[in-house]
Amino acid sequence: MASTRSGRRSGRRPGESGSREAILDAARSRFTAHGYDAATIRAIAADAEVDPALVHHFFGSKEHLFAAALHLPVDPAAVIPDLVAPGVDGLGERLIRFFLGLFDELGTANPIVALLRSVAAHEDAARMFREFYSQAVLERIAAGLDVSQPRLRAALCMSQVVGLVMTRQVIGLEPLVRADDEVLVSAYAPALQHYLTGPLPEPTRRFGATS
Amino acid sequence: MASTRSGRRSGRRPGESGSREAILDAARSRFTAHGYDAATIRAIAADAEVDPALVHHFFGSKEHLFAAALHLPVDPAAVIPDLVAPGVDGLGERLIRFFLGLFDELGTANPIVALLRSVAAHEDAARMFREFYSQAVLERIAAGLDVSQPRLRAALCMSQVVGLVMTRQVIGLEPLVRADDEVLVSAYAPALQHYLTGPLPEPTRRFGATS
Repeated sequence: MASTRSGRRSGRRPGESGSREAILDAARSRFTAHGYDAATIRAIAADAEVDPALVHHFFGSKEHLFAAALHLPVDPAAVIPDLVAPGVDGLGERLIRFFLGLFDELGTANPIVALLRSVAAHEDAARMFREFYSQAVLERIAAGLDVSQPRLRAALCMSQVVGLVMTRQVIGLEPLVRADDEVLVSAYAPALQHYLTGPLPEPTRRFGATS
Repeated sequence: MASTRSGRRSGRRPGESGSREAILDAARSRFTAHGYDAATIRAIAADAEVDPALVHHFFGSKEHLFAAALHLPVDPAAVIPDLVAPGVDGLGERLIRFFLGLFDELGTANPIVALLRSVAAHEDAARMFREFYSQAVLERIAAGLDVSQPRLRAALCMSQVVGLVMTRQVIGLEPLVRADDEVLVSAYAPALQHYLTGPLPEPTRRFGATS
């Protein structure tokens, strides 16, 4: 699944490369217009005027197609199991080190920043991202975590990672831009670990509960 | 400084209300085009074709003018001293309760959401927000906190609050949208408190430091 962004690089014939680009264009349009859940491989293939089997051949799954079409720099299916596998102890630190490493690697061409800009500006993009994230990330983390309320805990972690990207890379707030990675790990690792394993009251389900 | 949003409501004469609106329009344009630091009351007054004294009369300070022009729902000059005054103990919980209370009060017409959308979409808005926030919020919190690296600590807190608004209100991630305020306080208060008073290594200033 390497070099999914540019078919040309791998020396494919122009016809195949053209189909690949047509599929990616159709996927981007359909994911944006209909959201992640409602967009089907079959409909995307019809828009691109190719056989659905070709979409599966190129991209394997809807999730991979989404990642390629939206230029996601990571594949949650590959990354999350590795992060979660050693167990929930130390997962907070593994998470923040993973993201800081990824941001360093991506530099100024960080597609996560582009994605957040688009999500903030367009409700369609927000829905698409929400649906994809719920399925590809929250469900996958939840499946690997032996804790109460795993989806909420994963969402709490995400709220901090998104906030770090927004304040450090979109807003460019000086103390965060200048901070060493090790300082950021000292700050964020225990907070994420608290979200993952700290005490969390069960949601209230009673009527007329006080305060 | 109440009802700064609508001069008409307080029964001002149309001429005065007209000047007030002209000042707010000029302020919005100039803050956006030149940033918070470079926009002067004098230049805004000139754009609005009024005397600078009238700007001071209506808005008191550049910070208040900014808050009114950008429809900020809170005035940092009024709010931060109250939050910080009881001391740094418990400040994490006071901060998250303040923001959750504010979001409940503002409901769907939350101007912080509108501001973040604009910041994410436009570099000009990001610069304006960065400059305003650094002066009106970071410096003010830093002045009230007896801790190391107060600006960084305030920025860490901000990264979480911004991330909560983004994931809960812009992206609309279900587990956070549905979560009770008390569940969110249990999660976020200790994290913010850790940012404010937890151990934080001093930034590296040596050359050739290892890892």
